[in-house]
Amino acid sequence: MNSFGRLFRLNIFGESHGELIGITLDGVPPGIPLTLNDFKTDIERRKPTQKGTTARTEDDMPEIVSGVFKDYTTGAPLTILFKNKNVRSDDYSEIAQFFRPGHTDFVAYKKYKGFNDVRGGGHFSGRLTLVLVAAGVVAKKIIKPIAITTKIVEVGGSSDIETAISRALEQNDSVGGVVECVAENMPISLGEPFFDSLESLLAHAVFAIPAIKGIEFGSGFELARMYGSEANDVFIDRQGHTLTNHSGGIHGGISNGNPLVFRVAVKPTSSIGVAQKTFHFKNEQMESVLIQGRHDACIALRVPVVLEAVTACVLADALLMTKAYDSNNAQD
Amino acid sequence: MNSFGRLFRLNIFGESHGELIGITLDGVPPGIPLTLNDFKTDIERRKPTQKGTTARTEDDMPEIVSGVFKDYTTGAPLTILFKNKNVRSDDYSEIAQFFRPGHTDFVAYKKYKGFNDVRGGGHFSGRLTLVLVAAGVVAKKIIKPIAITTKIVEVGGSSDIETAISRALEQNDSVGGVVECVAENMPISLGEPFFDSLESLLAHAVFAIPAIKGIEFGSGFELARMYGSEANDVFIDRQGHTLTNHSGGIHGGISNGNPLVFRVAVKPTSSIGVAQKTFHFKNEQMESVLIQGRHDACIALRVPVVLEAVTACVLADALLMTKAYDSNNAQD
Amino acid sequence: MNSFGRLFRLNIFGESHGELIGITLDGVPPGIPLTLNDFKTDIERRKPTQKGTTARTEDDMPEIVSGVFKDYTTGAPLTILFKNKNVRSDDYSEIAQFFRPGHTDFVAYKKYKGFNDVRGGGHFSGRLTLVLVAAGVVAKKIIKPIAITTKIVEVGGSSDIETAISRALEQNDSVGGVVECVAENMPISLGEPFFDSLESLLAHAVFAIPAIKGIEFGSGFELARMYGSEANDVFIDRQGHTLTNHSGGIHGGISNGNPLVFRVAVKPTSSIGVAQKTFHFKNEQMESVLIQGRHDACIALRVPVVLEAVTACVLADALLMTKAYDSNNAQD
Amino acid sequence: MNSFGRLFRLNIFGESHGELIGITLDGVPPGIPLTLNDFKTDIERRKPTQKGTTARTEDDMPEIVSGVFKDYTTGAPLTILFKNKNVRSDDYSEIAQFFRPGHTDFVAYKKYKGFNDVRGGGHFSGRLTLVLVAAGVVAKKIIKPIAITTKIVEVGGSSDIETAISRALEQNDSVGGVVECVAENMPISLGEPFFDSLESLLAHAVFAIPAIKGIEFGSGFELARMYGSEANDVFIDRQGHTLTNHSGGIHGGISNGNPLVFRVAVKPTSSIGVAQKTFHFKNEQMESVLIQGRHDACIALRVPVVLEAVTACVLADALLMTKAYDSNNAQD
Repeated sequence: MNSFGRLFRLNIFGESHGELIGITLDGVPPGIPLTLNDFKTDIERRKPTQKGTTARTEDDMPEIVSGVFKDYTTGAPLTILFKNKNVRSDDYSEIAQFFRPGHTDFVAYKKYKGFNDVRGGGHFSGRLTLVLVAAGVVAKKIIKPIAITTKIVEVGGSSDIETAISRALEQNDSVGGVVECVAENMPISLGEPFFDSLESLLAHAVFAIPAIKGIEFGSGFELARMYGSEANDVFIDRQGHTLTNHSGGIHGGISNGNPLVFRVAVKPTSSIGVAQKTFHFKNEQMESVLIQGRHDACIALRVPVVLEAVTACVLADALLMTKAYDSNNAQD
Repeated sequence: MNSFGRLFRLNIFGESHGELIGITLDGVPPGIPLTLNDFKTDIERRKPTQKGTTARTEDDMPEIVSGVFKDYTTGAPLTILFKNKNVRSDDYSEIAQFFRPGHTDFVAYKKYKGFNDVRGGGHFSGRLTLVLVAAGVVAKKIIKPIAITTKIVEVGGSSDIETAISRALEQNDSVGGVVECVAENMPISLGEPFFDSLESLLAHAVFAIPAIKGIEFGSGFELARMYGSEANDVFIDRQGHTLTNHSGGIHGGISNGNPLVFRVAVKPTSSIGVAQKTFHFKNEQMESVLIQGRHDACIALRVPVVLEAVTACVLADALLMTKAYDSNNAQD
Repeated sequence: MNSFGRLFRLNIFGESHGELIGITLDGVPPGIPLTLNDFKTDIERRKPTQKGTTARTEDDMPEIVSGVFKDYTTGAPLTILFKNKNVRSDDYSEIAQFFRPGHTDFVAYKKYKGFNDVRGGGHFSGRLTLVLVAAGVVAKKIIKPIAITTKIVEVGGSSDIETAISRALEQNDSVGGVVECVAENMPISLGEPFFDSLESLLAHAVFAIPAIKGIEFGSGFELARMYGSEANDVFIDRQGHTLTNHSGGIHGGISNGNPLVFRVAVKPTSSIGVAQKTFHFKNEQMESVLIQGRHDACIALRVPVVLEAVTACVLADALLMTKAYDSNNAQD
Repeated sequence: MNSFGRLFRLNIFGESHGELIGITLDGVPPGIPLTLNDFKTDIERRKPTQKGTTARTEDDMPEIVSGVFKDYTTGAPLTILFKNKNVRSDDYSEIAQFFRPGHTDFVAYKKYKGFNDVRGGGHFSGRLTLVLVAAGVVAKKIIKPIAITTKIVEVGGSSDIETAISRALEQNDSVGGVVECVAENMPISLGEPFFDSLESLLAHAVFAIPAIKGIEFGSGFELARMYGSEANDVFIDRQGHTLTNHSGGIHGGISNGNPLVFRVAVKPTSSIGVAQKTFHFKNEQMESVLIQGRHDACIALRVPVVLEAVTACVLADALLMTKAYDSNNAQD
């Protein structure tokens, strides 16, 4: 089921090597100015221009096919498409012979009983993060003045990111990383107690990004090592500002007005340029395989703009939820 | 919005010091044997009998008030209630004067405009994890033969758990911890690509447990420090078993049949027995306050059975989803 | 799945002869004054005091067990329980021998594989409409100043309602009826195009009321017999008031500010005091059976207050939805 | 919010005069054979070839852009697009001066604060029923061997349909009608008690079709005129077959294995070729207006294939739900 959100709702579709990929946004308020220009920056940021990412040459031009009229959102479902121009005509028959380590080949084959689109990972492809980025562009307009920033804080366990990537590249290997996300100008009240805690909603969306295997809010796992007297964030004024922000701006699942802070762990790209062992079905034994094709040395480099996007989508949804109950409904 | 799940659906209600707390389970298949006896073990496990937890003397006897007939589930909504016998008649007027550091007082006051039930944390109380445990008892029956176990792997940064807790107790302080959850006998195919990835669903549910601030699957944050050649789990047979399990049993958001493994970070209890600073509204300045009342020195000690419970609920839901599509629907 | 609504959400539970029946309302805005007194009028209106309904002696006293603090809603899930005091200890073994015509015995047995609670219809019982009435009391406060009224417009095809019921009573038979619902002071904009049209939402909720087999909005089935020149409602002012109201206050699925008007068809009570034929399993042939126990001669008499209630719930949900998008979200 | 369904989920998008309209189906089981050929018959049936409908010349060729691989469904979201070739470049400035009687102009303007796409009804257009028909093609494959048929039973109050339409055409007027839907080979158990009763789900979907203003199941409004002794369907065998089918194959919200039968009331097309009065904003008075453009004399003629489609979608969803709980989950 490929949808997410209650009031700002994302529905994604498409496969890596199909005709196109797309997203439908349901619940976009009417009257938001939106043109193709708005997408440029974020789409560029996702592109593989950095060292450590590789070139799939795509124009990645969005087409808005519904929900916008005369450069304003209409309130109707907003659909954005991206054509897949660079469709490889590879031979995928090998896939029937062994499953690539770390890849989705195996689970996709099992779950969909062999009917899944095997070309380039099909619907599981990281290419679909492109439509998440597009959704983020719209969401960011809804959540203003909340401002989200992300940065890569660690690659291969080191903060010297360039060096760590170079080392992986030299070995035809890949390497993991940690990305931090911060949202400033946060309103108080986003999120709900228990099941729709802001942490629950953010984590739900964040784990939709391929390759993410961990998330921590505020001081996260470090909190597990602290005393309460260290961990408690002290309120310093009537507005709820705190001296420290170990909680990452969330108390009891609700945003407390301090900056939202969280970090995610990104695993190394599964596709690597070195031989790996795996079970070969036909030969019925372990064999060494070298998987062809380009790969990103560090998929974490592409995560920041995607992470911003899903964060913006979650905050937009939570914000609309808050507005629903905020008005003065109480009457006798 | 206090509900969770698509086909096995939880709805919780109640406040710490209200008349009762409860949960309604929607989507329980008919014909599952269920008696009050089934709840005993898990409810006992949640109780504060260990050093480092404190005694709120509650019988915690579940009452099944709907959905069970002649000791079998009927398929109708299954509601379980727990009376709150030990209702304190404390004076909560102090709460209007300052917000306790690390507590939900502030956000609850803001979000609900002062109408929230302030007694003992109201609906935000950790007491509501009791109904999650009850839900877990039912869910565990649905997911058989999947078997979930949990253990505390770290307290205050140390694996010597007893010592770490003693040290916190001596200081009237609290301390955080890390809890690990493992599910064996996992079927292949649970979870969906992208928004309903198994990681997304589990993280969503896990962050509904108060005090949890981080989650990592498989090798988690350690993966961010690895090379792809180390991180990739090598398939060793036709059934998809892997040599290592860095992915924690999930590839592309889908269970791969290997054990599901994840860890959560639990922050220290916010309530501590030492003086803390906070902003005092009436006096309009920072003041030192000592908050009365018992507290758990290490709330992480209570997390394992709750973590098992929400994990069982997520797996039950995912399993029912899989059954829906599993049957031979394909026809021409 | 026994829940309904997106932002004002109902979850019902309980069986006719279980310990209690109840409802949890999720999404009630905080700060609404609410006491047990508020429920009296509507609960009384549902009671079988009229000729044509029969006495199940129940106090029907609601207990609010969560979500209200100091007589105001808190914003947390609001649960209302009704104890079932008048639990019959009938022998239900007969049910295994034949299925009562018009009753849910058969489908319940099949759907739940014999595990359903057979006592008094179990979860299918009309008694659960009591919790809908309770939900309606809360919803009516949210939707003010919208005012909903209902009336029985026809019983047994006649507008002389008393006579029609007397005739049915004389024959130990039951009879159907038509109930009309009107909501005045409607805001413009409730409902969505297509799947969440106001007609869709209302019909969805209305068909949750047992015994309802038809619904028509505005002139309804009469519209199918009209020309467009007759059917089109002519706008007479800038505010969208119309000369006629054949559309029942809904255009394109959206409320247009004119009164919401719809009618429902209520079938005769299935339980009647005359012998009926049905297939007897043990004897493997058609047999004449006389089903014991009291019955309402005209269940339609109880429908008005229930119909008001579900209508109020749908409007409350739609109103909260509208508020979410109404604020000035549009920014560049 | 333009989505519907729990396990077989429809998301529609597009505007009458935008670039394209489309639908994403989530929850399509993998392995269903599907080619463009499968859509031909139903798309043809919706076309305006009959007397009483008018020609918008569209090829209406579906494009399947995701979710199908090598002519089988993959289990991933299935998106079908229809290009809008025949885009009129009309002047819509008139719309700002008055609202057309019976049309969505007014509510769309109010709900979306003037940002709605006004061209040809925008997202409210009946053209979007085309994507519902496409969804129905897929749904019909899932629900086999259930077979759905529809027929027009009445136009303008008469069963002589041709004559009634001719009469409307002669007057440049439009006329309403009644359409009946029957599903044979129904399994027992579809639907849930209360909120997801089969009547609730079907009515919800059916009222998503523009111009439908009433629905009745089985004998519907006629039941309101009957005695219980007439209305009760007598069981005649162990399989639950009944002598009569006044309930339309649904008892207590659950399908009982007898044919599903319901009828819908379709109002006359709002666009007519005769002058109508409406309030003119600029002139601030009632004025007579003649609205240009082609129109269907009887929109009911186009409803049957759309009604079949949404019925198939609801049944597919209900069937998948049933499969989820059907398996032998009960274990101790």
